[in-house]
Amino acid sequence: MKALVYDKELKLVTDYQKPILKPNEVLIKTKMVGICNTDYEITQGYMGYCGILGHEFVGVVESVGENVDKKWINKRVVGEINCACQDCSYCHQNLQRHCPNRSTLGIWQKDGCFCEYFTLPVENVFEISNNIDDETATFTEPLAAGYEILEQVHIKPNSKVAIVGDGKLGLCISLVFSAMNIDFVHIGKHEEKLKISKEQGAKTMLLSELKDEDKMSFDVVVEATGSTGGFEVSASLVKPRGTLVLKSTIAAKEGLNLATIVVNEITIVGSRCGQFKPIIKLLENKKINPKPLIDGIYSVEDFKLAFEKNSQKGVLKVLVKF
Amino acid sequence: MKALVYDKELKLVTDYQKPILKPNEVLIKTKMVGICNTDYEITQGYMGYCGILGHEFVGVVESVGENVDKKWINKRVVGEINCACQDCSYCHQNLQRHCPNRSTLGIWQKDGCFCEYFTLPVENVFEISNNIDDETATFTEPLAAGYEILEQVHIKPNSKVAIVGDGKLGLCISLVFSAMNIDFVHIGKHEEKLKISKEQGAKTMLLSELKDEDKMSFDVVVEATGSTGGFEVSASLVKPRGTLVLKSTIAAKEGLNLATIVVNEITIVGSRCGQFKPIIKLLENKKINPKPLIDGIYSVEDFKLAFEKNSQKGVLKVLVKF
Repeated sequence: MKALVYDKELKLVTDYQKPILKPNEVLIKTKMVGICNTDYEITQGYMGYCGILGHEFVGVVESVGENVDKKWINKRVVGEINCACQDCSYCHQNLQRHCPNRSTLGIWQKDGCFCEYFTLPVENVFEISNNIDDETATFTEPLAAGYEILEQVHIKPNSKVAIVGDGKLGLCISLVFSAMNIDFVHIGKHEEKLKISKEQGAKTMLLSELKDEDKMSFDVVVEATGSTGGFEVSASLVKPRGTLVLKSTIAAKEGLNLATIVVNEITIVGSRCGQFKPIIKLLENKKINPKPLIDGIYSVEDFKLAFEKNSQKGVLKVLVKF
Repeated sequence: MKALVYDKELKLVTDYQKPILKPNEVLIKTKMVGICNTDYEITQGYMGYCGILGHEFVGVVESVGENVDKKWINKRVVGEINCACQDCSYCHQNLQRHCPNRSTLGIWQKDGCFCEYFTLPVENVFEISNNIDDETATFTEPLAAGYEILEQVHIKPNSKVAIVGDGKLGLCISLVFSAMNIDFVHIGKHEEKLKISKEQGAKTMLLSELKDEDKMSFDVVVEATGSTGGFEVSASLVKPRGTLVLKSTIAAKEGLNLATIVVNEITIVGSRCGQFKPIIKLLENKKINPKPLIDGIYSVEDFKLAFEKNSQKGVLKVLVKF
């Protein structure tokens, strides 16, 4: 089968072996895959991962393994990416995404979905209805990562909330927050990106419009820039004893100053993958439209063009068709 | 009066003007002052502070300003260092140490206590009984900073807890945790320092004894090293969804990697000054003995020797007598 493999370099292999179904798994025929920043980071050495890339997908169940109900066959599905043991203290708390024995689709010890066929445990997959099209469905995973914040942090009706960063991560969080009727301001550098946010309900503000009185005034700030400078701006906006949600893995090359965190006794909450169910419900009810984020759809043969497009400044989501 | 002033360099001024009492203030005659790492950092440019240094003290009230009960005169006191407006949303929540209008003794817009006489609002001072000697009393402030953790973080009876760092900050936290009967391990690099911790009830462990299974196994880790390396060790010990308490203002010169925080969804809690009352009670009841931390007591005329001693590797607390 065709597979997009990273092994020191990214290449399209045409004779990759089709995966063999294990018990409790489903075999999925890929329809569409989104390129995530994590895919790019892996090609820069993140996690030391070698194998098939990709973890944002929509596909159709082709066949099922032992113990799996045959009703799954031909269902159109999306899927959570952490494959857990279901038998440790984390799994027992429904925290499969922290299972110490987990593998992660296209990121850690499990081939990803940038290929014609791949497998997932049946617990990970969710059927989606026909009123969610393929393009929209591939956003389930990044939108769920935005929703994760609401599982971790109690945002109160009167909380003053900001999202900093208007890349695809910040925009996904913004669309989720708007759908959940949270009152917040989305702060970024790009008017045309903030427009996407605004059209779905957000208040928006250019970074250059920040005033002195905005400093230390927010109860909750979500850092979604991925830059050291963005982290420091975000931290400066948080009230003493407020909360800074860290959504991006910042590996600071310059100095990252944590003095503000201590002096203002800020709580930083690291936040990663989320659960799919609430997002599927929002998408089914047309509460979120992620399609304005799409900047290109390529066939897998044109993967080079797709990844090139993805790495261009200002480009949001690039999708790949199978 | 004599005063130890920092203004580009540290010098002993002998004709500094005695402060003038304002309403609601007490004038304190200094008995003993502790040197804190913050004092050292100020001499390296921290907070851009110029003026009299010092914020850890014991003294005797000499006179009182308008509206202050005369019963305070001749009382032996310690005092909280943040001087607040008492009239903002933080002060109304008893969070005077986050009052945006505050000054801070010897750190921010208020002369410190490295001098013969200084003032504090009467709300800040606490009488101490004669069974707490001067040396012990000067530790009230750094011990309160340790106690602050217990106000911010819910440590449950079964929580697995570690303190990383065996400098004076880590030791003060350890003594408080032991006094509060918290089950924890104190991890450091120096056997002779950990011994102080052990003798007052802590389990201790050398950093070199850490095993692979200790990684990601603690519910709460307190980072008290002040170094980038210490931060990363501390973060690596925290369980997914666990808590890392940040007690030291780390200004990383090398890269500080926050990826673990996001991947393991760790909560970082910045933590600074604490309240004095619970510490005074513990000291009165002889639940904490900070005196093994004392590495030297100097008279103010020998301030140069005192600060030199304080900057020596391995030295813990240096006190200055007036």
